[in-house]
Amino acid sequence: MTGTLYGLGLGPGDPELVTMKAHRLLKAVSVIAYPAPDHGTSFARSIAAEYLPGTQKEIPIVVPMRVERFPARAVYDTAAAEIAGHLDASEDVAVLCEGDPFFYGSFMYLFERLARRFPCEIVPGVSSIMAGAASMRRPIAARNDVFSVIPAPLETPAIERRLDACDAAAIIKIGRHFARIRDILERRGLMASAGYIERIGLANERILPLAQIDPEQVPYFSLALVYRGAEKWIADRAADANAEGART
Amino acid sequence: MTGTLYGLGLGPGDPELVTMKAHRLLKAVSVIAYPAPDHGTSFARSIAAEYLPGTQKEIPIVVPMRVERFPARAVYDTAAAEIAGHLDASEDVAVLCEGDPFFYGSFMYLFERLARRFPCEIVPGVSSIMAGAASMRRPIAARNDVFSVIPAPLETPAIERRLDACDAAAIIKIGRHFARIRDILERRGLMASAGYIERIGLANERILPLAQIDPEQVPYFSLALVYRGAEKWIADRAADANAEGART
Repeated sequence: MTGTLYGLGLGPGDPELVTMKAHRLLKAVSVIAYPAPDHGTSFARSIAAEYLPGTQKEIPIVVPMRVERFPARAVYDTAAAEIAGHLDASEDVAVLCEGDPFFYGSFMYLFERLARRFPCEIVPGVSSIMAGAASMRRPIAARNDVFSVIPAPLETPAIERRLDACDAAAIIKIGRHFARIRDILERRGLMASAGYIERIGLANERILPLAQIDPEQVPYFSLALVYRGAEKWIADRAADANAEGART
Repeated sequence: MTGTLYGLGLGPGDPELVTMKAHRLLKAVSVIAYPAPDHGTSFARSIAAEYLPGTQKEIPIVVPMRVERFPARAVYDTAAAEIAGHLDASEDVAVLCEGDPFFYGSFMYLFERLARRFPCEIVPGVSSIMAGAASMRRPIAARNDVFSVIPAPLETPAIERRLDACDAAAIIKIGRHFARIRDILERRGLMASAGYIERIGLANERILPLAQIDPEQVPYFSLALVYRGAEKWIADRAADANAEGART
């Protein structure tokens, strides 16, 4: 009997947004693995920290930041081999994932290496898009709206084309692309229907009108939500949220 | 002091996919409100049922099926007035929401009626799209993919235009539109990169290749995921999932 590999979605950052199922498995597995930076603590592990029994084996998967846009094959090969060793020894392994494992997550690089050889279960998690909308008190989409997730690193014409083809959008991975994204939204008359949030659900979460953001200060994990044609009542809500200064 | 209104995302149906936060609030509030059908039980309430203390006041919000595509103003006006009565009496009220409250949810009809008058907090939930992908063991999107949610009731040219503008898509609300959606995917050569699931996470969940589905038997809550350009390894995974006959 081999162990089971779990892709464990932990949600956007607030430990209370972990699901009951992820909570149960975090306490039950023998081994946890998680993405970690070169220096400092793992964000995924920090979400789970208060639920961990403290007796588990841990596998930090260190992916150097400079290759963020291309999976570091050797890193995932090595991590997969180490995880496979535990699974072969009948130990269950949970890979801790920020947000949801299959929604723009790096878990799929382990999944493609291990899922054919071992039992594998994916536990879905709350996406930072839903959590960002909740903090901003802005509906994402309704009824027969087309909603698109558009990564900011795409080229400007590609972003514009995709924005034009939807009713509502989440622009992700903004970081150093902020000024360009803001200009795109401005040219399309979408500033009034857009909201901006960074560090969703964390103590230093920030919600501000796009026009007030310093492009030099935008972190990679930031998000803009656009809801075309719903400017009026969204603007009302955003004003409420901003007046409060932070999440409720 | 008025009570607080909570928009409580409960996830796609499996009670274990409720978050720790929703779980805490389900036990703490004085009043719960939830959408309910004309006849039979409320799906949202059924997700929460095992966590409820059994001592709360309950407000079923009965929205007649025939007006599903247009909010029944009178129904929400009445429900909002009843909820407001409890909030005025310093009672906290949780509105139980399938999936996430702000992602194609009916909670926003109560939110727009009540959020300016009372403290309101949105608790995000796991979307059925993420849960469907987990059950199907199919990644939704990665890296700089554009991902779109496309409601099946849209007209065929609109669906085609939106499909062409993304790398990955979730087609929602399929129901009686199944044959038309299948034909669209077939004409675009997307059958091999599409997966289909219905009744996500429930005991009668079903995952089948699109070509094997009887169009007369498709429920409203069904989902097709398309991941363009990732046919090969998704097909492998889908074959695994189908061989198992159900979710792992």
